[in-house]
Amino acid sequence: MANLQKALDYADQNYESFVNGLKEIVAIPSISTTPESKADVKRAAEWVAAQLRSLGMEKVQVMPTAGHPVVYGEWLKAGKDKPTVMIYGHYDVQPVDPIELWNNDPFKATLSGDYLLGRGASDMKGQLVATLKAVESIVKTDKLPVNVKWLIEGEEEIGSEHLDAFIQTHKDLLACDFCLNPDAGMIAPDKPTITYGLRGLMYAEVRVYGPERDLHSGLFGGTIHNPAQALIELVAAMHDKDGRITLPGFYDKVRPISKEEHEAFARLPETPEEYLRMTGVPALWGEPEYLPVERVGARPTLEVNGFLSGFTEEGSKTVLPAWAMAKISCRLVPDQTPEEAYRQLVKFMEMNAPKSIRWEVKSLHNAGAAITPRDSAGVKAMAKAFQRVWGSEPLFRREGGSIGVVVQLQQHVGAESVLTGFGLPDDNIHSPNERLHLPTWKKGIAALIHFFYNL
Amino acid sequence: MANLQKALDYADQNYESFVNGLKEIVAIPSISTTPESKADVKRAAEWVAAQLRSLGMEKVQVMPTAGHPVVYGEWLKAGKDKPTVMIYGHYDVQPVDPIELWNNDPFKATLSGDYLLGRGASDMKGQLVATLKAVESIVKTDKLPVNVKWLIEGEEEIGSEHLDAFIQTHKDLLACDFCLNPDAGMIAPDKPTITYGLRGLMYAEVRVYGPERDLHSGLFGGTIHNPAQALIELVAAMHDKDGRITLPGFYDKVRPISKEEHEAFARLPETPEEYLRMTGVPALWGEPEYLPVERVGARPTLEVNGFLSGFTEEGSKTVLPAWAMAKISCRLVPDQTPEEAYRQLVKFMEMNAPKSIRWEVKSLHNAGAAITPRDSAGVKAMAKAFQRVWGSEPLFRREGGSIGVVVQLQQHVGAESVLTGFGLPDDNIHSPNERLHLPTWKKGIAALIHFFYNL
Repeated sequence: MANLQKALDYADQNYESFVNGLKEIVAIPSISTTPESKADVKRAAEWVAAQLRSLGMEKVQVMPTAGHPVVYGEWLKAGKDKPTVMIYGHYDVQPVDPIELWNNDPFKATLSGDYLLGRGASDMKGQLVATLKAVESIVKTDKLPVNVKWLIEGEEEIGSEHLDAFIQTHKDLLACDFCLNPDAGMIAPDKPTITYGLRGLMYAEVRVYGPERDLHSGLFGGTIHNPAQALIELVAAMHDKDGRITLPGFYDKVRPISKEEHEAFARLPETPEEYLRMTGVPALWGEPEYLPVERVGARPTLEVNGFLSGFTEEGSKTVLPAWAMAKISCRLVPDQTPEEAYRQLVKFMEMNAPKSIRWEVKSLHNAGAAITPRDSAGVKAMAKAFQRVWGSEPLFRREGGSIGVVVQLQQHVGAESVLTGFGLPDDNIHSPNERLHLPTWKKGIAALIHFFYNL
Repeated sequence: MANLQKALDYADQNYESFVNGLKEIVAIPSISTTPESKADVKRAAEWVAAQLRSLGMEKVQVMPTAGHPVVYGEWLKAGKDKPTVMIYGHYDVQPVDPIELWNNDPFKATLSGDYLLGRGASDMKGQLVATLKAVESIVKTDKLPVNVKWLIEGEEEIGSEHLDAFIQTHKDLLACDFCLNPDAGMIAPDKPTITYGLRGLMYAEVRVYGPERDLHSGLFGGTIHNPAQALIELVAAMHDKDGRITLPGFYDKVRPISKEEHEAFARLPETPEEYLRMTGVPALWGEPEYLPVERVGARPTLEVNGFLSGFTEEGSKTVLPAWAMAKISCRLVPDQTPEEAYRQLVKFMEMNAPKSIRWEVKSLHNAGAAITPRDSAGVKAMAKAFQRVWGSEPLFRREGGSIGVVVQLQQHVGAESVLTGFGLPDDNIHSPNERLHLPTWKKGIAALIHFFYNL
């Protein structure tokens, strides 16, 4: 306890230097999607590596991938009886366009009241520096109570394209008990949040082919099955009139929501009214027996992400199109798998496609769903840390999106992730005038120090 | 009868000069859609006017419109007891792209076996010249047995955009008993054809709006009605499971097909097998109690001409789109009207659109259906002419398309059209290597001479 307090005191006393550290890394324009930024991306990786070395981390390396490098480092001297925590982060950022909407230079981190403005200040250089500074606070006053490994990538903003191969190749190096992923944010400054579940994804393209070429709708309409109409009929039939998905067997493996989970969902601030406000729709939609947050977090969906057929410009053209295309994706929940969902989609087409058209289904993207037991050591340590720093229980949520690294670590390393972070919904991430709420960030560093001592 | 024979002999003797006349007008690249061709389009109009003057036509004028001009001329000296026949034609042509697929210069009409090759040779400079040369054959050897008016436009290939206003403005000038429209072609060289019905058209755009902007399908999927899915559900419901259109009252005014008409339809060469061959579809589709030619000619349809929503490029993007758009058109038959069909579509949306989305319907194009009584004077005169020249009864068909001028003349002038022509299905109209089958064309000129004497 005395050691914990020393670390917390160190963090307090060095807060200004922590902010300066964050300013340093924000100043490096490590935009992963822009080829011209390649040198800057590399420079950001080197900056992270130097930080890890200064913290006494070992085997620190900037490791090449087919894209931007991964920074690795470890410290495994806490003892074999202590858990090994992987700390995940990314040092790359989103582009800054439209630059004219920024009030400040996005790469000159600027203080403004309680905020630090700059690209990456929140997503996620701020979160990465919070972990570095929490560890610094410990190693400068004590020794780390757990073993740690760092996996800091440079391609998160472009889909972590090469991370899967990297993790597969280095799965022994990356072996750990669980992963701390502070890229998931929190709901409000007074509502520390742990995200313990993510939906998976099955993304496919369905194409329907009719006549060999576009036909004149006057000369052939009524005798040829219009491929747009045929695909529309098929996609419409993928939900029944109560909004349930009709792919055969789709719900068979969906894990039910427990009473305890339901109560936690009901505590989240995203009420139906809040969903209406966020989206501007005239009315919500979906399975009426579930809360909107449950439908988004813990229920699977089938969405039309895109549909294209025939003439779509201004005006009128009386074409009977030769083909139609739909991008169809399913958000999946434990224990569905994308492979099964894809087979169910193909099976649906086999069962329902009429003889008057030809069709094909192409798999475009798969990601598994993830759920971390809420009574796991990592989640409990983080929840207790929040309790200590914020004085209240964290909120638990399951998120509707998919995060590649979470699934990859689960799959190749067998490690679940504890998803949290100190970014806020109004931090303007991916937008102009990104910012970080510094009082929350400061509490976050303290919570991370607690977290390591709680393990 | 002696006079008829003189005219037929004249046509025989001057066939070569007729072909040369056609070559002259084919050489003028009167592409109505290309702004750079404006002077050529004008030149083609002047060529037509000069032809009319050389035939002794009166009041010949190249009359301006907001677009390309209309050529008018008349000869009304046959007597008040004789019918007045309007001769419709167009002197504009389609573009020639892709030019590299042409075997000859499209604007240098070239003889090749039985064919004259060139843009417009069939559609419809060839047909226009056939009427000019039929009239020439009569006026050079006799005097016309009927009164004639010419209405030769220059915008048919771009939708006759300004013709409606022109006909409305000049409806007294254009007063006539019926119109001869030789732009409708024939089914085969041995099958002279009269088209006595055309379907109408109601073309609209339906838009569905959901959230204010594209959303992340992971973060919102399951709680927001996806506008693409909502529109898909609506469009799918516009047909019932037997393929019948469900717009309220849609079939109320559809004129039944008579037994005699059904028998004429059954004689047409477009068998189900022929439709399969022409389109390459694996199976036909449509109301099973009607022949394909009936479904295309005498039954109404509802088609999706285009559909667009969300992400439609290569790859995957997990977007929940903000809006979806469908181009929806109905082919209409007597006695449906486009205005009523539009109201039925709006009514359908009012009855079926869910509260979870906003929607709008925009009318884009309307055209009435048309049917000319098969026992009208014009149809009978043309049928008898075909009988004399081909030695067989013509085929009667109703076409699935819409022709603006037919409806406009019906509406503003009260004149029905006799639709025929000597173009063949394999003339490559609107395509590279357009051609005209000269032996058929020559017979067509003779048939037109007969036609005028038959009235």
